[in-house]
Amino acid sequence: MRTLIRDLLTATAPAAEIEAAGWVRTRRDSKSFSFLEINDGSCLGSLQVVIDHGIPGSDDLPRMTTGSSVQLVGRLVSSQGGGQSWEMQASAVRLLGIAPEDYPLQKKGHSPEFLRSIAHLRPRTNLYGAMFRLRSRMSQAVHRFFAERAFHYIHTPIITASDCEGAGEMFRVTTLDPSTGAKQKFEDDFFEKAAHLTVSGQLEGEAFACALGRIYTFGPTFRAENSNTSRHAAEFWMIEPEMAFCDLEGDMDLAEEMLKYLVVEALEKQEGDLAIFEKFVDKGLRERLEFVASNPFQRIEYAEAVDILQNSGKAFEYPVEYGHNLQSEHERWLTEEHFQRPVTVFNYPKEIKPFYMRLNDDERTVTAMDLLVPGIGEIVGGSQREERLDMLLANMERHGLSTEEYGWYVDTRKFGSVPHAGFGMGFERLLMFVTGMQNIRDVIPFARTPGHCEF
Amino acid sequence: MRTLIRDLLTATAPAAEIEAAGWVRTRRDSKSFSFLEINDGSCLGSLQVVIDHGIPGSDDLPRMTTGSSVQLVGRLVSSQGGGQSWEMQASAVRLLGIAPEDYPLQKKGHSPEFLRSIAHLRPRTNLYGAMFRLRSRMSQAVHRFFAERAFHYIHTPIITASDCEGAGEMFRVTTLDPSTGAKQKFEDDFFEKAAHLTVSGQLEGEAFACALGRIYTFGPTFRAENSNTSRHAAEFWMIEPEMAFCDLEGDMDLAEEMLKYLVVEALEKQEGDLAIFEKFVDKGLRERLEFVASNPFQRIEYAEAVDILQNSGKAFEYPVEYGHNLQSEHERWLTEEHFQRPVTVFNYPKEIKPFYMRLNDDERTVTAMDLLVPGIGEIVGGSQREERLDMLLANMERHGLSTEEYGWYVDTRKFGSVPHAGFGMGFERLLMFVTGMQNIRDVIPFARTPGHCEF
Repeated sequence: MRTLIRDLLTATAPAAEIEAAGWVRTRRDSKSFSFLEINDGSCLGSLQVVIDHGIPGSDDLPRMTTGSSVQLVGRLVSSQGGGQSWEMQASAVRLLGIAPEDYPLQKKGHSPEFLRSIAHLRPRTNLYGAMFRLRSRMSQAVHRFFAERAFHYIHTPIITASDCEGAGEMFRVTTLDPSTGAKQKFEDDFFEKAAHLTVSGQLEGEAFACALGRIYTFGPTFRAENSNTSRHAAEFWMIEPEMAFCDLEGDMDLAEEMLKYLVVEALEKQEGDLAIFEKFVDKGLRERLEFVASNPFQRIEYAEAVDILQNSGKAFEYPVEYGHNLQSEHERWLTEEHFQRPVTVFNYPKEIKPFYMRLNDDERTVTAMDLLVPGIGEIVGGSQREERLDMLLANMERHGLSTEEYGWYVDTRKFGSVPHAGFGMGFERLLMFVTGMQNIRDVIPFARTPGHCEF
Repeated sequence: MRTLIRDLLTATAPAAEIEAAGWVRTRRDSKSFSFLEINDGSCLGSLQVVIDHGIPGSDDLPRMTTGSSVQLVGRLVSSQGGGQSWEMQASAVRLLGIAPEDYPLQKKGHSPEFLRSIAHLRPRTNLYGAMFRLRSRMSQAVHRFFAERAFHYIHTPIITASDCEGAGEMFRVTTLDPSTGAKQKFEDDFFEKAAHLTVSGQLEGEAFACALGRIYTFGPTFRAENSNTSRHAAEFWMIEPEMAFCDLEGDMDLAEEMLKYLVVEALEKQEGDLAIFEKFVDKGLRERLEFVASNPFQRIEYAEAVDILQNSGKAFEYPVEYGHNLQSEHERWLTEEHFQRPVTVFNYPKEIKPFYMRLNDDERTVTAMDLLVPGIGEIVGGSQREERLDMLLANMERHGLSTEEYGWYVDTRKFGSVPHAGFGMGFERLLMFVTGMQNIRDVIPFARTPGHCEF
């Protein structure tokens, strides 16, 4: 029975017979011994294995090069050398799979660009192994966070005829043959109408919140924007909670609570993997995360944020003007320079926000909120939703939305309407915040961007 | 601060001041009191509220019809009536949203077909509320199961250029304008090549298992098959674990362990919701689930299963022949009639299985396994994968797969190849098994089938 290296490295006592398996990271040979560093992906750390040149299987040692896979039997003993508490004295070793000379991860220090071109192999490196273990841990923590708070996880549809107005360009989903040259009619297509990949599960989530009370989605969302930036991917994962009987304040409370929960998770439960980002990616990472975990967030109204920015004396690339969206540089200045902590900006002018947000009594602003964090800018965007039927219908008319097509959504206001609120958190943004990684392509297993759909 | 009805109904002591909110299920009026049954979606049960006709807000009582939403303040007291332990004596009630006469869920006893046409409202019914709470609970349990076993959750891509050979018809993803009538060229499209919605994350999952050891995916998968059966949907969720250093036996162990874990979860943690399926959908449900939870599963080789079926004396619609896939009727007879328990069939003829399965030493069969359950048939399909480079390449050639296009997949065998195995469990099949629901459209929040992409 194989023991994970994660468990061997944290053992509390020696063991007379253990089995391990993994991939060779390095091999050092001396006259009568060889030392293998073995990693099995269960954690960042590798197991040092001492191999006497006489044991069964040791004849294959010359072929146990970096990247090859081996199976081991032996004893777990206190390590003689520094750097690790335990090592394995092998009694038998078996070469499972060789890694010929053209193995691309022979040496350390590859560029991110090169590693993206071998996305199927890069999780075998220390940094990307840590990245994707952390991504997994964060995902599981998202589900735990909501389960602990009696939220129901809803799988909102990926293929959709709704477009959650204004969220962005959409991909079309079709089974029609593109090569015929004939004009394609939606009514001949699989769904007998135009169908797209979802940009948000919010509208469907609202319908479920208006039945089950507290729900969340956590699934893939899509944007067909032809922009090649380090922040945009065509396919990314989004977390979208929605709460019935909840106002803007409750919404901001949840967003801040969730962000802190996930940061604490990374700090406390994934410490080993986090260390490598601190070391190689972002020297101030841990300090920044600990600050976020332990300090209250700032909350300010949009109008106040505009005031502060306009009086900052700072020369921004984009001017700050009431009635315009804050740019990333403005958001980052607020959190990094001015408040030096995460900032929730709320009550935005209605003109720059979507139709579903609730109009405030001032009739100029809506109950929108954006949670901004240092290094990233906006990480959460949400709002209390317009629950008043007449107001919603007026908004829809102003935005040119068909009340027939969205009749089902209108129903949620027509029948037993309740105050409700929710938000969306881009999961990749969260991961970039928690690791310090600067390119979204490096926090997604297989990134999809314009022209890139490999693997 | 609102308390969830789930918590009120399981309270251990009376409370002097509580707040609740929810939707009116029924109202009964007497001369000086009214009784409201309030549901907030947190659980199947409703809270009985006694409303004295003099309290603030009680003037609106006539408009508090079925489906309307209300907010309540009052005391939690022992219930006088039967059927519940606690009830609320309201000191104030507030009507939040009315539900006019055309509210479609006025009466009970709607057909499943009708309820599918109002998929945005059906979670407000007892049965579908229970369904989607159970779906949520099962999802969260899937993540917990794998987290407890050190599996890493991997988000494999939804948009893909791979097709996991033989898994089915695919949807195409495009940003080209379909209405021009011009012949469309893939190189002009968003990804500059043909892109589709994934039918399985297995191949990408294998690449990550060959780095992180134990991984799983849990995400949406797609089939563009134009079949209108009660078992098929165009969009459904699949769970796909993949384990390095694992053989067929370990694979079967995990599949059986996972199924039991999830069945126990439904029985123990979601008892309230399960009861309604027992009552209205499947009288023998609990007994069947308890049997599965507490008995070992049967394992037989495919050849033996064929023997048993051929000697059964049973007249099947489709004949049983070695070298053909088992039909649903065969699978169900094995589990329901012959063994009367879940059955794992393994070692199938290589001709009827995909290219990636490992050839057995008999050179006729591959290490495929299907886990069959009563009432459903196949709920899990998996295999040990062919880890030998030369064998895999020969299989790919036989299946006409391009080693260039799948070069990345071949790399996993070229560099440090390891024995590995995995399986796929259709999440909707699991839900049908656990609830007794007979149509896949009724276990998915918003089902996508040919011609249907509403909401």
